Amino acid sequence: MTLTYTQHYIQVTREELIIALRQRITAKRFEHVLRVEQQALALAEQYGADKEAVSIAALMHDYAKDMQLSAMATLATTYWEYPGLSEQNSNILHGFAAAQICRQEYGCCHEGILNAIAGHTIGWYQMDLIAKIVYMADYIEPGRTFPGVEVARELSAHNLDDAVWFKMQATLKYLVDERVPLFAGAIDIYNSWTKQEDL
Amino acid sequence: MTLTYTQHYIQVTREELIIALRQRITAKRFEHVLRVEQQALALAEQYGADKEAVSIAALMHDYAKDMQLSAMATLATTYWEYPGLSEQNSNILHGFAAAQICRQEYGCCHEGILNAIAGHTIGWYQMDLIAKIVYMADYIEPGRTFPGVEVARELSAHNLDDAVWFKMQATLKYLVDERVPLFAGAIDIYNSWTKQEDL
Repeated sequence: MTLTYTQHYIQVTREELIIALRQRITAKRFEHVLRVEQQALALAEQYGADKEAVSIAALMHDYAKDMQLSAMATLATTYWEYPGLSEQNSNILHGFAAAQICRQEYGCCHEGILNAIAGHTIGWYQMDLIAKIVYMADYIEPGRTFPGVEVARELSAHNLDDAVWFKMQATLKYLVDERVPLFAGAIDIYNSWTKQEDL
Repeated sequence: MTLTYTQHYIQVTREELIIALRQRITAKRFEHVLRVEQQALALAEQYGADKEAVSIAALMHDYAKDMQLSAMATLATTYWEYPGLSEQNSNILHGFAAAQICRQEYGCCHEGILNAIAGHTIGWYQMDLIAKIVYMADYIEPGRTFPGVEVARELSAHNLDDAVWFKMQATLKYLVDERVPLFAGAIDIYNSWTKQEDL
């Protein structure tokens, strides 16, 4: 599935964005990102989301992942002010950094796109359809093989909120199993989800 | 296993403490507390901990659990200053409240006892032997039947640090499974454990 950008959410074409992306990340990651975009577009089709916004967010989501950690931290903290954010590792920082690149380099002002990029790893407080789709597409794209991915695919096909909950819970439990420190910002987002009564 | 208090850690005898305890909590909880004390004393025997301190912490650990929430919050925040502590539920607050009662009503100044009481639910940063024993005794006393309790008993019998890790991880994962908000103070304690290199 390909598409032509017409909404001017960013100042380049889809083709120019892909060429730039290829220069910024490893070949293996580039293939992953293209699969995420396709998965995200399929979900956008199913759930009636803005495909251009979804495509941009999906293509940008790992844009910063192969940067130096210090540069990533600088970008992330240019805009976001979570306590302790600058000391986080690349897993936490790369989404925030990519969103900032999308804002700075590509002139993006679409909050839905920027939040979807920033929150693709740890989720977000009020996730709109774009954010939920990118969050899940990154988790279930066809290259993923971890235990539980089939459940995530099944949930994504039927109820995006259930799918987002599944990923959020599974991610936290995985980190706890691995005895990895938990980022307070991610816990704050999880806590906000526990309080959304409509879910 | 019974014992006579001789160290003046608190200003009453074990018998007086038990009589007071019986008046403060439900009959069912009272039985649980007595089992926790016996379990804790058995672990104290095995690991060479101060039995009098362990007995006091075990008998006091749920002392505040049947209080009104507002009174619990007042007691807890008299001494501890965690952000958001006063808004927590009784699961989080009752240990802090009981430690404060031990300090205020029974004149206890033994930091090991007070921290063991305060941290018996969410753990503690630097847990000494008393704290680890009370934390685990509460989890594995013979009345406990939850899935995983046999693993916890096995670990407690062989390596207290492994056992504490098991409870801390299982508790967080249980809360996430139940979609319960996570207390930032508990996450901070968990994070400090992930950074203890000797574990």
